[in-house]
Amino acid sequence: MLCTMRFLKGFIIGIKVRATGKEIFTGQGIFHLPAWLLLIFSLWTPSDGGKVLVIPMDGSHWLSIHPVLEHLQQRGHQIVVIAPDANLWMKPSDHYTMKTFAVPYTTEYLKAEFQKLGHKIFAQQSFLSKMTETFARIRNITTLFFSNCKQLLNNQEMITYIKENRFDVIFMDPVSPCGQILAEYLSLPSIYYLRGIPCGLDSVATQCPNPHSYVPKFFTAHTDHMTFNQRVKNFLVGSFEFIICYLLYSPYELLSKEFLHRDMTVPELYSQASVWLLRYDFVFEYPRPVMPNMVFIGGINCGKKSPLAQEFEAIVNNSGEHGIVVFSLGSMVSEIPMKKAMEIAEGLGTIPQTVLWRYTGEVPPNLAKNTKLVKWLPQNDLLAHPKTRAFITHAGSHGIYEGICNAVPMVLMPLFGDQMDNAKRVESRGAGVILNIIEMTAKDISNALQAVIYDKKYKENIQRLSELHLDRPIHPLDLAVHWVEFVMKHKGAAHLRPAAHDLNWVQYHSIDVIAFLLAVVLLALIISLKCCLFCCRKCCGKGGRVSKKSKSKSQ
Amino acid sequence: MLCTMRFLKGFIIGIKVRATGKEIFTGQGIFHLPAWLLLIFSLWTPSDGGKVLVIPMDGSHWLSIHPVLEHLQQRGHQIVVIAPDANLWMKPSDHYTMKTFAVPYTTEYLKAEFQKLGHKIFAQQSFLSKMTETFARIRNITTLFFSNCKQLLNNQEMITYIKENRFDVIFMDPVSPCGQILAEYLSLPSIYYLRGIPCGLDSVATQCPNPHSYVPKFFTAHTDHMTFNQRVKNFLVGSFEFIICYLLYSPYELLSKEFLHRDMTVPELYSQASVWLLRYDFVFEYPRPVMPNMVFIGGINCGKKSPLAQEFEAIVNNSGEHGIVVFSLGSMVSEIPMKKAMEIAEGLGTIPQTVLWRYTGEVPPNLAKNTKLVKWLPQNDLLAHPKTRAFITHAGSHGIYEGICNAVPMVLMPLFGDQMDNAKRVESRGAGVILNIIEMTAKDISNALQAVIYDKKYKENIQRLSELHLDRPIHPLDLAVHWVEFVMKHKGAAHLRPAAHDLNWVQYHSIDVIAFLLAVVLLALIISLKCCLFCCRKCCGKGGRVSKKSKSKSQ
Repeated sequence: MLCTMRFLKGFIIGIKVRATGKEIFTGQGIFHLPAWLLLIFSLWTPSDGGKVLVIPMDGSHWLSIHPVLEHLQQRGHQIVVIAPDANLWMKPSDHYTMKTFAVPYTTEYLKAEFQKLGHKIFAQQSFLSKMTETFARIRNITTLFFSNCKQLLNNQEMITYIKENRFDVIFMDPVSPCGQILAEYLSLPSIYYLRGIPCGLDSVATQCPNPHSYVPKFFTAHTDHMTFNQRVKNFLVGSFEFIICYLLYSPYELLSKEFLHRDMTVPELYSQASVWLLRYDFVFEYPRPVMPNMVFIGGINCGKKSPLAQEFEAIVNNSGEHGIVVFSLGSMVSEIPMKKAMEIAEGLGTIPQTVLWRYTGEVPPNLAKNTKLVKWLPQNDLLAHPKTRAFITHAGSHGIYEGICNAVPMVLMPLFGDQMDNAKRVESRGAGVILNIIEMTAKDISNALQAVIYDKKYKENIQRLSELHLDRPIHPLDLAVHWVEFVMKHKGAAHLRPAAHDLNWVQYHSIDVIAFLLAVVLLALIISLKCCLFCCRKCCGKGGRVSKKSKSKSQ
Repeated sequence: MLCTMRFLKGFIIGIKVRATGKEIFTGQGIFHLPAWLLLIFSLWTPSDGGKVLVIPMDGSHWLSIHPVLEHLQQRGHQIVVIAPDANLWMKPSDHYTMKTFAVPYTTEYLKAEFQKLGHKIFAQQSFLSKMTETFARIRNITTLFFSNCKQLLNNQEMITYIKENRFDVIFMDPVSPCGQILAEYLSLPSIYYLRGIPCGLDSVATQCPNPHSYVPKFFTAHTDHMTFNQRVKNFLVGSFEFIICYLLYSPYELLSKEFLHRDMTVPELYSQASVWLLRYDFVFEYPRPVMPNMVFIGGINCGKKSPLAQEFEAIVNNSGEHGIVVFSLGSMVSEIPMKKAMEIAEGLGTIPQTVLWRYTGEVPPNLAKNTKLVKWLPQNDLLAHPKTRAFITHAGSHGIYEGICNAVPMVLMPLFGDQMDNAKRVESRGAGVILNIIEMTAKDISNALQAVIYDKKYKENIQRLSELHLDRPIHPLDLAVHWVEFVMKHKGAAHLRPAAHDLNWVQYHSIDVIAFLLAVVLLALIISLKCCLFCCRKCCGKGGRVSKKSKSKSQ
């Protein structure tokens, strides 16, 4: 059915479809053949078209959610994306209607901010200044998100549009709880699409147990097997990350109160989600307790291999028996300090493979003949090529899943955010080698590449992970779409909501029960003791009195 | 593919297939056409045939696992079922090879034991004697299972057969850990197929958090929303059920030591399972924490509706606008005391619906005209009939899933085991009414039936549950088969095993970390206090000495 839908996709472009049937054709003649085909087709399409309101996030988050929107639209649903008018990646498309709202900054400002972020990665800093700067950077970004949210909720025209359009579901990225405030306001079910929320908010909001002893916290770069010292650190991070949550998210509580006219904490807001679509797969993430309303769609972004463009095909074919290495540090890094770039270029020059390096900065003068700089590369298609021997990546989760899907061993150069955690996961599975981007030398790069290319265990391990990952009963994209449709059809998924949400902290941990039982035991002990003492006194007392009497008599 | 396989099923009967290719045809001529068709077909079958060793349980457990075996065989796998030679339901079939081992009792003895069980249900007993008897009954059954296990493991011929046959996986019912002992002996991955193991062994073995505050324990008949008193009871049951586990399962530890020549506790044995196929669906079970190696296949036993036999079709058609009520207390109840049977018959006679009652006992003399007694009934097909208005059931999980699949509101008469828990789940969803089988009167039965038939909310609730249950991305049977094939192909599912298994109780609960941190805080406090005291003494000491001196001078 889906294949047929894809086959018919060509006919659909240019035709605006209202699933409610009010506007079947606009902008086209009534006798337009594709439109009629679409009508006939719509009669046997499996899903009744629903109306999905999307509140996405910019950057790689948007690139990640996009295929789901495309898939939903192909299934006959109407998709409306709400985005700030200044953004990096969110552009109009035939797959959805895009509605923008004004924000008090320009796209140029946003780009400059992101570029600044890229520049600072390579700066040598003390631990303290790095930590302070990281927090300031996160704070900066969250302030931006918060400002967007405020603008959206105060945009009366947009709110009226959303209210009038009677959506069936809100499909959102929960890095900001803005979409959930809207969902509460409109009494709509919501679905989250995410990798994770920092500071453990996702665990709190889903009432998912999160043992500090083997579930590594965000940004600790621990594996699930920790030393005692690591467990102490993990415990401390896990116990106090709520402070970071408070600092980052508390402004939303005021905003939500203003908009909804009722008090709701941020965890309460998040706990209303019907389903959490988590970009998790346990070949990459560590196994841990989960909840029934979590759906795992890790690897959703691994595309099917497309033929390479002539330019890349030629490079790959000319690489000979040694094959190629794909190198990309993602779109955030547009330039690398020349000294570091030369170090990298020198390292890349030591291997016989052809290196395809996505880099937009100044060309290092020592670039070896085997290294080809490109402004852009078809990453997944190149990774899927049998001649690809290794993948040098900044360890973003998308890139890593592409590496896993295509079974390419990795050299990992994590830059910021969750990338160190990601890199550690790949390394702990024996499928890659981590390099410290600040400290690495040409020799380190060369050694790491030689290891992942020539030491068979790396290829074997990534091959095993790939086979496990791809052996699934249903494709993650179909699974995600199923759950969006499920929530639309049944107006939520209340049957998946654990009763834990109705207990307070004391009740959840049975502290009141334990206190009661201790009190009972204590009372029983005291009564028993008193009884014993009373009996003893009775017996001994008699004896005592007797002896006293006999004593006095003897005196 | 599967349809074609089913189409070809007819050809396969009578041909013994060895997936290894050693014996493609036996007992048939080499020019046998179906055999050739099978050979051609096997070239494009999607799954490479594997060898599955099945260690099942008798009774309803066997009926439950059977469709999976059928499905696996249809996918080209070779199934060998190991069963005691005295059993109730496990009979040879074209879908598997059955190998039996001798046990020191007869089928007649077993039948008599089960019938005894049925008889005692209706006896008026005090709480204490009921509890004692229930435990004795469970003990009796587990002793029987243990005796079977001993016989199997000591059957040298059978063990040699199993060893020589080089199976790919052990597919077992974990009510007894016998299969797992074999799996350890043969170093084979294992898959469990179950509803649950009493006394919380499943939670312990999977390292699955199991909060006493909202996860009702087996046999408590609590819902997930408990009063304080219920939480106290649940906490006590949850905290001490390990004693029952010990009493029931500890003999296996000795047996396992004898057979494996190494120490393994029963939870350790169970923790080795690769995947737990749980007959769970959250329209029926309460949402709770789960683990990544748990796969939910609740409703796997809901068959497709088949046309009714002429006899039943006629009864249903003659029921008029009022329709029918299906009544079965399962195969365990062959006879009901006449007084109770008459009470039931009287209650059934008060409704205008035709009642189809599966009952093999003596006919109650007051049986009303609307009640038809039958020795057997096609339960699922009758429940699937649009004229069915209600289902009177003993609340076995299979029957309840059939009721949910077909959206039939229920009158629940739980008899023993998990049936009270099951009944409570249905009642708490507003999809049925519970009756106490010992105390119920004809009036109670009549009222309960009137309620579920004429109060619309019961039908609406079960309809909603049914829609939620049936809206799934993949059929539970296909999901179960996928995971069996997954474990065979990848020789287990080690990537789904949480690191919690490598921690002891103190480490898992971070007690060592908390103790360390408390010690650090205490030490810091003591040092700070000592420092303060030292400083104070220094300051006050000087003053003191001065004042003393001045005091002595003044004297």
